[in-house]
Formats: sequence, structure tokens, C-alpha cells
Amino acid sequence: MTVEPHLPKGMRDFSPAEVLARKAVMNTIEEEFIRFGFLPLSTPALERIEVLAGKSGEETDRLTFKVLKRGEGGKAAEADLALRPDLTVPLARYIAMHPETTFPFKRYQMEKAWRAERPQRGRYREFVQCDADIVGCHSLYADAEIIALTHRILLALGFDGFHIRINHRELINASFLACGIPTDLIPMVAVAVDKIDKIGLEGVKNELQDENFPTGHPKKLYNYLKTAELFDFLAIDGDNKQRIKTAQKLLKDSDVGLHALKDIAQILEILAEMEIAEERLLYDPYLIRGMDYYTGPVFESFVDEPRIGSLTGGGRYDGLIGIFKGEPVPATGTTIGFERVVDVLAELGRMPQPKTCIHVLVTVFNAEMAKHSVELTNLLRQHGVACELYLEPGEKLAKQLRYADERKIPLAVIMGPDELAAGRVQLKCLASREQHDVARADLYWKIAEILNL
Amino acid sequence: MTVEPHLPKGMRDFSPAEVLARKAVMNTIEEEFIRFGFLPLSTPALERIEVLAGKSGEETDRLTFKVLKRGEGGKAAEADLALRPDLTVPLARYIAMHPETTFPFKRYQMEKAWRAERPQRGRYREFVQCDADIVGCHSLYADAEIIALTHRILLALGFDGFHIRINHRELINASFLACGIPTDLIPMVAVAVDKIDKIGLEGVKNELQDENFPTGHPKKLYNYLKTAELFDFLAIDGDNKQRIKTAQKLLKDSDVGLHALKDIAQILEILAEMEIAEERLLYDPYLIRGMDYYTGPVFESFVDEPRIGSLTGGGRYDGLIGIFKGEPVPATGTTIGFERVVDVLAELGRMPQPKTCIHVLVTVFNAEMAKHSVELTNLLRQHGVACELYLEPGEKLAKQLRYADERKIPLAVIMGPDELAAGRVQLKCLASREQHDVARADLYWKIAEILNL
Repeated sequence: MTVEPHLPKGMRDFSPAEVLARKAVMNTIEEEFIRFGFLPLSTPALERIEVLAGKSGEETDRLTFKVLKRGEGGKAAEADLALRPDLTVPLARYIAMHPETTFPFKRYQMEKAWRAERPQRGRYREFVQCDADIVGCHSLYADAEIIALTHRILLALGFDGFHIRINHRELINASFLACGIPTDLIPMVAVAVDKIDKIGLEGVKNELQDENFPTGHPKKLYNYLKTAELFDFLAIDGDNKQRIKTAQKLLKDSDVGLHALKDIAQILEILAEMEIAEERLLYDPYLIRGMDYYTGPVFESFVDEPRIGSLTGGGRYDGLIGIFKGEPVPATGTTIGFERVVDVLAELGRMPQPKTCIHVLVTVFNAEMAKHSVELTNLLRQHGVACELYLEPGEKLAKQLRYADERKIPLAVIMGPDELAAGRVQLKCLASREQHDVARADLYWKIAEILNL
Repeated sequence: MTVEPHLPKGMRDFSPAEVLARKAVMNTIEEEFIRFGFLPLSTPALERIEVLAGKSGEETDRLTFKVLKRGEGGKAAEADLALRPDLTVPLARYIAMHPETTFPFKRYQMEKAWRAERPQRGRYREFVQCDADIVGCHSLYADAEIIALTHRILLALGFDGFHIRINHRELINASFLACGIPTDLIPMVAVAVDKIDKIGLEGVKNELQDENFPTGHPKKLYNYLKTAELFDFLAIDGDNKQRIKTAQKLLKDSDVGLHALKDIAQILEILAEMEIAEERLLYDPYLIRGMDYYTGPVFESFVDEPRIGSLTGGGRYDGLIGIFKGEPVPATGTTIGFERVVDVLAELGRMPQPKTCIHVLVTVFNAEMAKHSVELTNLLRQHGVACELYLEPGEKLAKQLRYADERKIPLAVIMGPDELAAGRVQLKCLASREQHDVARADLYWKIAEILNL
């Protein structure tokens, strides 16, 4: 009886060529993390459900893969663990469990996370996240550094048309309050405003007029709200200076709002010191970035083409670690949406195309000659050459060379009895079909010369 | 309300220093995989339960973490996915799903797997496995190459006292049958024999005399068996040639057994061609290596100290892929037990001690000077220096330098108003407390010189 081989929905295998290309992208990101002074951390794929629930709303819960208890009398159908849906809560738990940590603690983490979302372009049920966070630092220099890091990573990945949008969690609240929206309606209005990129200003107006709001609230929310003011906010335009000026006017009665605007202005100033071009940065009053654990500046980055939503997103979350630690610890950071980055690079035809990492195929002339091919392979490997020995002695040479071709292995070594007797080998370049007659003792040097090792 | 931060049982966080050390070990293994011509593959952490059940017995099932259905009307308490307990079944599934694969397909995979085992030294509920397999190759050269790879990896990791034991699945069966043990009792006898390393020959005899056997079988299995022959097998000793000779005598009536012995002799011959010292290799008739999917040669490696069981294990499994593909595809490979390797290296005091990957801390003299420190940081990063900017301007210099010390960052840059005016900076070596007065324009070169970049 055979078993039908299937993948879990929304999850993927990666072939050797795909792994090599993805690794190249990951290395580019990791290099920048390290260049900016971040150190690697690793946490388990599984977390205890009560730890994940520490911050999550209902939404997160619904999308989280829960894991059944195992072993030691664990009852089936009872789940105590879950696959992490992100890397931020695990970081907060780690900090709370390690009181010896000295601050600021700058860590990066590049690992898988899982969410049972509807699979679509750039979104999968298993995905790699690349996070960088700065823990224990109140200063806006930390937020600015996270934005500068994002900017540097997008440049290093080869994007040119992109920008980073910045907003502030307190500014979002203050703006909505200044428009007279009652606190308990803010999350719903925020959800509508968050769609402005997709559905436009008119679309947002329609959303707010919609009957979708829960009973107990006035049906025509749009009419209920002081919508004039709301749409004044949504119409903020111009360069960053103009935008901040307009917002200052609209928020003139909100100390919280004015303070948050000052934060944004200061971050933009630090980023100018970091020599980031002004057109890369946009104070965007529509940027909502979830409503859960952010407490300060928030930021997302967007490429001009293709239109796919944000590639990266982050912000300050000064309250999250306190949930586990009891005392508040400031923190700010970003996620690089690795899968989305990869999908966008592929659409732009910019994925790295790394060659195979195998340098040479050592062919086997016939069964009797096999031991000499083994010896040659051994020698080349000792020199550090990545070397494949053809493992079915007796196979025709043409088939062995075709195999090297299919594997995109650049060189093949051929040694028959004549070569053996003369102390020589044939070195074939698979692409050019060129063949070099090389003294055995020179083989490594010739390979190193051709492949630039 | 605070949430108690806990890790799942048998799972671990890894601090930056631990991640760097583990990565160093992983890189050593990966380099050898590549040098031997293996290419990377990646598969999801989750597999469908019916895929995992394709090969597993009850044991695997009990230890596998099952995942509850999510989203799209999935009923709670119903599990359709599970965390992979190894990387071999996912490989078999991949091969079956990719008929375009050309053989031999040599892949390596270094990823996490999960099993709900009782945690102990070298055994965790989340662990990294490093697998290398050759698919589509009947030749014993493939098995020999896997053993040579294992040998090379153990050397590269810095082990000196180690050896690799080799046996053959058909030889195990043939031996038991030759002793007159009925087929249905073989698994139970095998379990007892498998403990010989821990409990000795006398212990095995006791196990076989024990009342532990299921009802329906004669209570005194030991007496029932032609134990004399069994213990002749268990007493096989001497060097590999002597061992094979003795076994040939004992198996003189078993074609299957004699054929398997010939396989072992040939593998040892190929390994000699590969210049592996004889004392590293041992034909071991006690090596059982599970009873599930192996069909041919099996191998495990052991270090002399500390005694911890096998560090690596593998073998030929010509039937597994056929479960998914319908037609049989030969395969052989090994797992490097990464966690056990790490624990043994740590016990031997041989874990790599990589330095921090951060080169320089740029201090901030005071809030007014911050922008100049930002500029300097920017410049150094552009040169590829891994550079941390101290992110709380206004903090005392002594505290900033202590921070660098704690982080084991080797160099710190100090720039006050006097240095700024003179176009110079102070470069401090944290270990020696030496301080260099450097022209700003020479800073990168001085850093590169000191750190050997």
C-alpha cells in the first residue's frame, strides 16, 4: 500500500537551488544585522500557550497552531504548547527569564514562525522571520537605528524604489480622540483607516458608513463621528515638514499628540544625521500597524513595485516585556518579512542565482579504475575542493558527464588506464566542453585557477 | 497581572554566545557535507500525520508532537499535522513528489526536529539534526561514502578517540534465524541484544531469561532459544577480518547472511581505498540500529569518552521511498546527532569559543556630540566594520566602556569636542586598556590592522 505524499497546506519544500538562493538573501540580511551591532539569539519553535496568550488578542489565538500534550500521561486533545506565530513574544519571555542581561541588548533572530493564515502571495503558513530588536533603551536613537538598519538592508538587497513610513502609536490615538471618536470605537475605525492604501480615501468613508459595526453602536458611525476632522487628518499631505506642521495645527489641544509629533520630528532629524535621503522617509498618519503591543514610534517599508503591502514592519513596545517581567522594559525593533522579500525579489527578477556549491565531479572510468577515482576524490577533498565521486562504477562516461551537466557542476575529472599510467588526468569544463590534459600533481592548482578558489 | 515566563519542557533558549558556538559547529559539519558533494534541501517543520505514519511503528507515534487543525472550520481536538520527528521521512516524501529528480540525489539537511522523549544528556525535545543521504544509488560506494563522510566530520570536529561500527540489517536477521529464533520473536531478542553495551553479555542473558516477554510466548525464552548459537554470535571478537571469518563459519548455511557479510567486507575495502585507518572501523554483530526501515548496511559512531551512546547513526533504507512513490528507490544516509555532538564537545572542553562578531563600540561623548558619533558609525559600517553605536546619549563614558567590556567588544572609539576639532579620535583596546590617538581618516585602517580584518 502506498501513502499519498502531500505537503501541509501553505507550507513548502525548497530544492537545493532554492535553498542556495534563499540562503544568499538571508546572508545579506544577517551581514547588516551584524554590521549594526546585533547579536544572534535562538529560541524554541514551541512556546507555552499561556506565554503566547500573554499579549495576544483573539485574532492571534485563532491563527496559532496548537500542539497536543505528549508523553507522561498527557491527555490527548489537550494542548499546552503552540508554534510561535512571531519572534517578539519569545524575545520578551527570554528577557524576563534572564535578569542577568545587560542593556541595551541588541539581538537578531532569523528563524521560522507559523500562522494558519489563508496562503497568498508573500504569505505562507510556515515562514522565516528576520527580527532585530533593541531592548532596554528609551532613547529615540534606538528607534532611528532600527529604521536606518531597515533602510540599509533594503539597499543591500538591491531594492531602489522604496520608502519607509513612520507614525506613532500615541499619535494615532490622539488623532482619533481629537476627531471625537470614542475610545472603544478607535480599534474599529483604525481597521477601516488601515485599508486606505488598498481602497482609497472614498473607500475608507464607505467602510465607516457600512452597517458592519456591532450592534450597540450607532449604525451610521460615519455620521456619528466628527468626520470633518478625521478626514482632515487623512488628507495630511506634502513633505514631512509640511505634514508635521499640519498635524501640529490639528492636534494643538493634545499634549500627548504634540509630544508624539516631536518624537517623529526628532527621529527624522537623527535619520538625516545618518545620511538617509529625505525622500526615503515619510511621516504617514494613516499607518496603523496593528493595535496590540506598540506604544511609540511605528514604521513599515514599502517598495514602489510590485504593490504587495509592507516588506518590513516594527515599532516601539515598551509594555510587552513587563507582562512577563513585572517591571517595564523599553524595547523597539523590526521584522523583515523574509518570504515577502523573496517573493518581491523573484517578481523583479532580482533573486540571487548562486551556482551549485559543488566544484568537481570525479568520474569513474570502470569498476577496476574505481579505487583510483576514490583516491583522487580523497586528495581533492583534502585540498578543500567540494568534490562529488560518481557512485555507480560501471556507468557509461557520457551518462556521468550528463549527470554533472544536470547538477550544474562546472568541472569533471576523467582518468582511464592511459592517464593513470602517465600520471595525468583529463579535466573537462562542462560549459565550454574544453578539455585540459593535466599532470595529476597539478590538478588541484588547475581547478583552483579555473574556478578562482 | 504578569505571566510566569517558562520554557516548554526539554526545550532551550540559546544566548548569543551559545548561538555563535553552535553555529561554528554547524558550519564545520556543513563544510564537509558540501566538500563531499551534497546539496542543501529544506522541508517544512510540519508534516501530515498520514505521511509520518507511512513508516512509523507505535513508538514513533507516541513521541510525535501532533498539531491541532486551524482555520477554515477545522474542528478543535482534531490533529492532521505533526512536527517531524526526523528528516528522513520528509526526504522520502520529497523524492516521491519530485519525479523530475535525477539520481543519484545527494542532499544534506540541517534543521530542527521534535520528539517528546524524556529529556536527558544529549537528548532534548527540540533538537537539530544534520542529515546527509544519497538517493537512487544501489552501489556500496554510496554506503562507503556516507561512512567516510561521518569519519571526516568527526575528525573535523576535533574528536580523536572514536570509531564507527558497521553491521547489516540482513545479517542481523540471518544471525537470529541461524540461531533458531522464530521470526516473530526477533524484534524482542534484538531489543535485548541492543543493550549489550550498557548491560554486558551477562545482562543480555538475564534479559532473555526474564519474564518480560508477552504471554503466548514460552516464559523462559532463553531456554527455548538455541542460545548456544546466539551467544557464539555475540562472542564474535578480534579484528574485522577475524570477525568476518567467524561470522562466515556461523552463517555457512545462510545465503542471505553470507551475501550481507560480503557487503560488509566490500565496504571495508572501499573505506581502506579512502584511506580510513582500520582501527576506526568495526564490524559489530551486536549493532541493531532500530528495527524499522533499514534494509542493508547500518552504521553508528562512538567516541571513547564520554560514554554517551552513538553520536551518529544511519544505514541503507531501500524500501522507505517506495511507500510514497509506489516504486522502490534505493537510499542510504546518516544523521549527525548535533545535540549529542555539542554536549560531548562541551564535556571534553572542545566547544569552539567564537569571539563576539561586533568589532567596535562607538561611544557618545554627550548629547551635542551624538550626531558626530552617528556619522562616524555610519562611515565605519560603510567600510564593513560591525559597529555598535551607544544608543543612550548622555550616559557616562565609563558606563559605555563597561558595556563594551561586558559585550566582549574588542575596540571602542571615543570622540570629544577636542578630538572633533583636531580631526582625530581615540581608539581604545578594551582588553589591554591601550589607547591610540588616530587621525579620523586613518580610523578604518587602524581598526582593520588591529583586528586583522
